[in-house]
Amino acid sequence: MAVSSQAVSSQASSHIETTKLQQLAKQIRRWIVQSTSEADSGHPTSSLSAVELMTDLVFSGTFRYDVENPEHPANDRLIFSKGHASPLFYALWAAAGQVSEQELMSYRTFGSKLEGHPTARFRFTEAATGSLGQGLSVGLGMALAGKYLDHASYRTFVLLGDSEMAEGSQWEAIQLAAHYKLNNLIAILDVNRLGQRGPTMYGYDLEAYQQRIEAFGWKCILVDDGHDHSQIRNAYADACQSTDQPVMIIARTIKGKGVSFLENQEGFHGKPVDKDRVDEALSDIGEIDEPVHGEIAKPKEMQLKPLESDEAEKPQYKIGDEIATRDAYGNALCRLAMTYPELIALDGEVCNSTRSKQFRDDYPDRFFEMFIAEQNMVGAATGLALRGKLPFVSTFAAFLTRSFDQIRMTPYSNANVKFVGSHCGVSIGQDGPSQMGLEDIAMFRTIQDGVVLYPCDAISTEALVEAMAEHPGIAYLRTTRGDTPVIYDIDETFPIGGSKVLRHSDEDQVTLIAAGITLHEALRAHQQLKEHGIAARVIDLYCIKPLDHATVRQAADQTKVIFTIEDHFPEGGIGEAVLTSLSDHATPVNCLAVRKQPLSGSPDKQLDMQGISAAAIVDAVQRFVNHDSGASA
Amino acid sequence: MAVSSQAVSSQASSHIETTKLQQLAKQIRRWIVQSTSEADSGHPTSSLSAVELMTDLVFSGTFRYDVENPEHPANDRLIFSKGHASPLFYALWAAAGQVSEQELMSYRTFGSKLEGHPTARFRFTEAATGSLGQGLSVGLGMALAGKYLDHASYRTFVLLGDSEMAEGSQWEAIQLAAHYKLNNLIAILDVNRLGQRGPTMYGYDLEAYQQRIEAFGWKCILVDDGHDHSQIRNAYADACQSTDQPVMIIARTIKGKGVSFLENQEGFHGKPVDKDRVDEALSDIGEIDEPVHGEIAKPKEMQLKPLESDEAEKPQYKIGDEIATRDAYGNALCRLAMTYPELIALDGEVCNSTRSKQFRDDYPDRFFEMFIAEQNMVGAATGLALRGKLPFVSTFAAFLTRSFDQIRMTPYSNANVKFVGSHCGVSIGQDGPSQMGLEDIAMFRTIQDGVVLYPCDAISTEALVEAMAEHPGIAYLRTTRGDTPVIYDIDETFPIGGSKVLRHSDEDQVTLIAAGITLHEALRAHQQLKEHGIAARVIDLYCIKPLDHATVRQAADQTKVIFTIEDHFPEGGIGEAVLTSLSDHATPVNCLAVRKQPLSGSPDKQLDMQGISAAAIVDAVQRFVNHDSGASA
Repeated sequence: MAVSSQAVSSQASSHIETTKLQQLAKQIRRWIVQSTSEADSGHPTSSLSAVELMTDLVFSGTFRYDVENPEHPANDRLIFSKGHASPLFYALWAAAGQVSEQELMSYRTFGSKLEGHPTARFRFTEAATGSLGQGLSVGLGMALAGKYLDHASYRTFVLLGDSEMAEGSQWEAIQLAAHYKLNNLIAILDVNRLGQRGPTMYGYDLEAYQQRIEAFGWKCILVDDGHDHSQIRNAYADACQSTDQPVMIIARTIKGKGVSFLENQEGFHGKPVDKDRVDEALSDIGEIDEPVHGEIAKPKEMQLKPLESDEAEKPQYKIGDEIATRDAYGNALCRLAMTYPELIALDGEVCNSTRSKQFRDDYPDRFFEMFIAEQNMVGAATGLALRGKLPFVSTFAAFLTRSFDQIRMTPYSNANVKFVGSHCGVSIGQDGPSQMGLEDIAMFRTIQDGVVLYPCDAISTEALVEAMAEHPGIAYLRTTRGDTPVIYDIDETFPIGGSKVLRHSDEDQVTLIAAGITLHEALRAHQQLKEHGIAARVIDLYCIKPLDHATVRQAADQTKVIFTIEDHFPEGGIGEAVLTSLSDHATPVNCLAVRKQPLSGSPDKQLDMQGISAAAIVDAVQRFVNHDSGASA
Repeated sequence: MAVSSQAVSSQASSHIETTKLQQLAKQIRRWIVQSTSEADSGHPTSSLSAVELMTDLVFSGTFRYDVENPEHPANDRLIFSKGHASPLFYALWAAAGQVSEQELMSYRTFGSKLEGHPTARFRFTEAATGSLGQGLSVGLGMALAGKYLDHASYRTFVLLGDSEMAEGSQWEAIQLAAHYKLNNLIAILDVNRLGQRGPTMYGYDLEAYQQRIEAFGWKCILVDDGHDHSQIRNAYADACQSTDQPVMIIARTIKGKGVSFLENQEGFHGKPVDKDRVDEALSDIGEIDEPVHGEIAKPKEMQLKPLESDEAEKPQYKIGDEIATRDAYGNALCRLAMTYPELIALDGEVCNSTRSKQFRDDYPDRFFEMFIAEQNMVGAATGLALRGKLPFVSTFAAFLTRSFDQIRMTPYSNANVKFVGSHCGVSIGQDGPSQMGLEDIAMFRTIQDGVVLYPCDAISTEALVEAMAEHPGIAYLRTTRGDTPVIYDIDETFPIGGSKVLRHSDEDQVTLIAAGITLHEALRAHQQLKEHGIAARVIDLYCIKPLDHATVRQAADQTKVIFTIEDHFPEGGIGEAVLTSLSDHATPVNCLAVRKQPLSGSPDKQLDMQGISAAAIVDAVQRFVNHDSGASA
């Protein structure tokens, strides 16, 4: 990420006259009204309330950004957590000369990079937003990267809406930003009083926000008139002085500001101005004497110290060793630390269970304790990934469901985040259903272009953690609580999209497809079936997405029936993934999965009860074979 | 829910001597150590810290509960949000004579009702917990029911752990409980300083919690020694005086209290006492002079006024009317309000979009604005359902992913919650991917015994909302943003588990299975295919789970190929549900679904781009038929 950058000065722009700012604000307001009216869709009123807050930030020298080089490591970061204010966001970049008026008017049309809510398709979007209450976590991740990893001078600015302050994820981020003393994180709360369906919980009570946010350890700056340039300017100047506290600027604004018939009115959320009232709206806003162009201050010169990397040694396991895949995950992180110097780990206060603790102990500067706050953990990981880090995020697989909304948003940011869920399935045993990851495969399979991995032993786990690190994109690894025997040789390779045929013969009648804990049950079943004269093929589907169609289809061609065996609910799991692969194939597929409500109890009893143990597999196969031979007799 | 209850007095138990409480605490500690050691699993240290807090609550007259009648409408409610303290929870009921010592020792064994974390299988469990940061929301729901719906005298007590205070969902609940002035909600924060992997964010800084929680409008009571009966007694007495504020008792406790070698030590979370040290632990705790029995004060007498119900009229739509299914949902709630007097609605600040606004306007006393805080909304709905209400919870389908963890927990509480997600799929158009529900079918299909509904018109929507209300269990309804034509007659019935064959002939070559918005595309495709001489069967799969196997299998028997068409990602959606239904069937299934990253743009363009429009269906079918005839030629 080393970057060549020229020495720059920001004198010019840091003394911009208020009159010019007012001209810029006027121009931006006109564009907001015009682009949304042209699109007949969008949120002009939510954009108009923050015009002065953002115009001042971007064009009065506070915000420093090299428009020629969005990747400049010292660029300040600007995230619109209230992503529906995108008309303002795009208009700002138009005022900076980076978006043409013509492109502005393509807002929300098919194929335009100016989407309804900002996504990575627009080059100045730091992170995709639109699901409220996520931007602050992403900003927190970027601030962590700047302060603790890159030691960079940049600040992260996040524009927040007042409605979204009701989201718990905001308070997760607020709490953690104070814990990490992120003075390089500055949030601007646009208190325009009105949510989508009416007044917010606290209306114009700025002190209500101040009390709560200060109680969590932030510095708060109140702006009584969020449309007064001098008040705003002073707030930013003050905010930039903070030495060890994140800062929240809480500004009273007017929704629809600038257009008399929209100002502070209910019923205008997400409604563009009717075409026949656009002229009226524009004359309310007023004319601009001449075309205005806003200049953005350049960042300080800096280069990132290139990180040194080193070859990783091979893991040390012998076939037959009993070791949990979660332990192998912890070992792998440590083993790969020098090969991937940008690799970092985040954990939700369970690192001793997920085993990321080993990495925390060996590389404390590259580990972030995120406490029991999974939504913020995932949002922050997105921010860290967008700043070039390689975050591995771990907690119990069950608790990753807590952050499904943040997870589903990562692809729209092109964030390279790695997820690891431990304690998957009923095989965790006594802790009971609340702790069992039984939906995680279904959840992660829905992520477009996502990778879903589920290793059965330590060797494959180590190889797959490395494959995740190499793979540019979202990937999920599912690990098991209990020990499992090492079945692979140290030199075995595990490419993403592959699988392993562990048992096969020309006489194979049935195919057993399993992964993780049930792979070992399938191997035991293979042996028992052999003793009953039934030859079974066994496939380790260590990569569930993308799936190894060739191997699965070959098995379907060569055997009479396929059994999938998974420690997961049937919906969206391994069975349905295999069915999809065979959607045009006649070979029957029997899906053995978790179909009864799980209880507390020993792992063995759990697998038996759910019909995914070796004995249950043997029983199911025999019933099929007997019935089949009976039928064909 | 009318209940016969006898006049009762609690004089006896409200003046229990401290010495007896100490004896009870001692007995409970012994059981905690013994039951977890016997199970060789569980969380004794997290249980020991709260022994005095809970013993005092339950046995000194503060807590009122008719043990003979858990359904008594005036019973106080006790929820262990820190569900891992289940050994304490069960021991309390043992001390009350409701669980035998023998049953206690079956803790965490297969089939025991005393599971690792409390579930509905134990009759005194108010709500299943174990995923942290959920119990307060459930308690909030119960408090809402008591204060605003049943006007009942009961209080809801929630035991919280200090680690779980990091969860944003806690702050969603804290904020809303203050907003609704729930003085009948009393939380007890067990500050034992130690989380799972080490110290919590705030350690023993009670004031840190106090500041934050008071800032949100709660009354806070600090207890410096959470093991001192007199301090605890005073705290409860004070808490019960609150008239318009929820109350948080913040108590400093010692993790592992009572067993010297466990007290305040790291590394003992979730670890039972080794069998060879049990005697040492028990002697630390001390002997009990004689068997002690705790008496629980009886609740005040009360009867719930039986609610009157009334026949619902039929909806008023004509075939051909253009109306969005979300509008029909709002209409249905209002139409069914008198038929289901226990029916209530909750919405996440988007009722004008989900259309629950109509119910809010007509029945303001039965609507709860939950603001943009989906996790708490679902937790609260669970609490309301467990108090006999029939909550319909609505927000954008995309934002229900925010509460997946709460949703997945509802079955373990047997909570009868109804979910409604609007704005599903790419067909919402210009707002872009962040607002599109594309994972919701996959998410809700994983809920065991859950129902997943997706109507295509206003008539079927009204019928299915009624079916949801009648159905005793978790159900999800997916609604569409845009208008769709009414295609069903007023008298059509839509049983759960059914489907509708809308087009069929003896010449059918292909089957089109769709639901919701794509059903209309399938109907258009049918017409166009007909003009090309291809007869297509069209099935409206309005109920995705449970699925109408018979109709789908018959179509597979009678046609050459099945096409599923859905406005959802392929993983875990309609296509995979159909594949599962045909897992032993040879007929090929082609799944048309959302496979490209969605953009902003008009609904029509979105459907075309994703290959799920009528034109795309026709094209796909023709390609199959041509290839098929070519192959068979």
